[in-house]
Amino acid sequence: MPRILGLDPGLRHAGWGVVAVTGNRLQFVADGTVNSTDRLPLATRLKEIYDGLQQIIETYQPDETAVEETFVNKNPTATLKLGMARGVVLLAPAHAGLPVAEYGANHIKKSVVGVGHAGKQQVEMMVRRLLPGAAIASPDAADALAVAICHAHHLQTRTRIAATQP
Amino acid sequence: MPRILGLDPGLRHAGWGVVAVTGNRLQFVADGTVNSTDRLPLATRLKEIYDGLQQIIETYQPDETAVEETFVNKNPTATLKLGMARGVVLLAPAHAGLPVAEYGANHIKKSVVGVGHAGKQQVEMMVRRLLPGAAIASPDAADALAVAICHAHHLQTRTRIAATQP
Repeated sequence: MPRILGLDPGLRHAGWGVVAVTGNRLQFVADGTVNSTDRLPLATRLKEIYDGLQQIIETYQPDETAVEETFVNKNPTATLKLGMARGVVLLAPAHAGLPVAEYGANHIKKSVVGVGHAGKQQVEMMVRRLLPGAAIASPDAADALAVAICHAHHLQTRTRIAATQP
Repeated sequence: MPRILGLDPGLRHAGWGVVAVTGNRLQFVADGTVNSTDRLPLATRLKEIYDGLQQIIETYQPDETAVEETFVNKNPTATLKLGMARGVVLLAPAHAGLPVAEYGANHIKKSVVGVGHAGKQQVEMMVRRLLPGAAIASPDAADALAVAICHAHHLQTRTRIAATQP
């Protein structure tokens, strides 16, 4: 029963969600948001995010992680900030020795909703349907669960392919 | 005799340089570059940089760190990559409990060369003059030493102001 940690990078709020995979079924484990303190220096904020994620990894012991690819903004300053948060979000699982998969936003939507250009609300609704009992602490947590579901579907396909081989 | 670690963020090559401050004088300690492996996944490359910097901090035991502010590129993908490297470069000293100062490129040039729009070669020449015996392993290492020198000048000014107060 592998556990997948989904991550949605952000400097202010980094979403996370843990899903357990049992054969064809998915099970909600936990979700939430790691927040950084606005008025603190950048380096300290990045440490808040990193420490928060490290604690989540320790608590929920995932086997794999999946991160949503960052949308490159037209505002270069915003892109730089997102990049910094993303660097730290990728580092935390890598440092724990976990594999890190990356998926584009449209790929995730297609995997969760069935269409590549679904809206935020549609994604959240499908996350609730696929993971009965999910807390969904915030929109970022919903995005994190969505990327975890997307990775779970990939794992399940891989397993099915392996099972049907002679 | 406080030691300053200067850092020049980059995903492929992160420059670093250590300078010791004794009153009005600066002394070269060490410099180098932490490289990441091109063909590896992003998360692994970020881990290479983080681990490399952690080892340098352990070896040279700096008291303060200074990082050059990242120039926001017009190419959003390049900016995102730089942001990721920068996030990890800021995190390493923050995680070691060290203060992290940030300086803009022009500020550093003004502090090292005397003018804000100096060229790369002028900066490197002044770094060599201010730090006799500096190895200067690469252009990135020269940039890292320059930001360390800039921070040293700030510390010296602070000390002078404190000394002249009644």
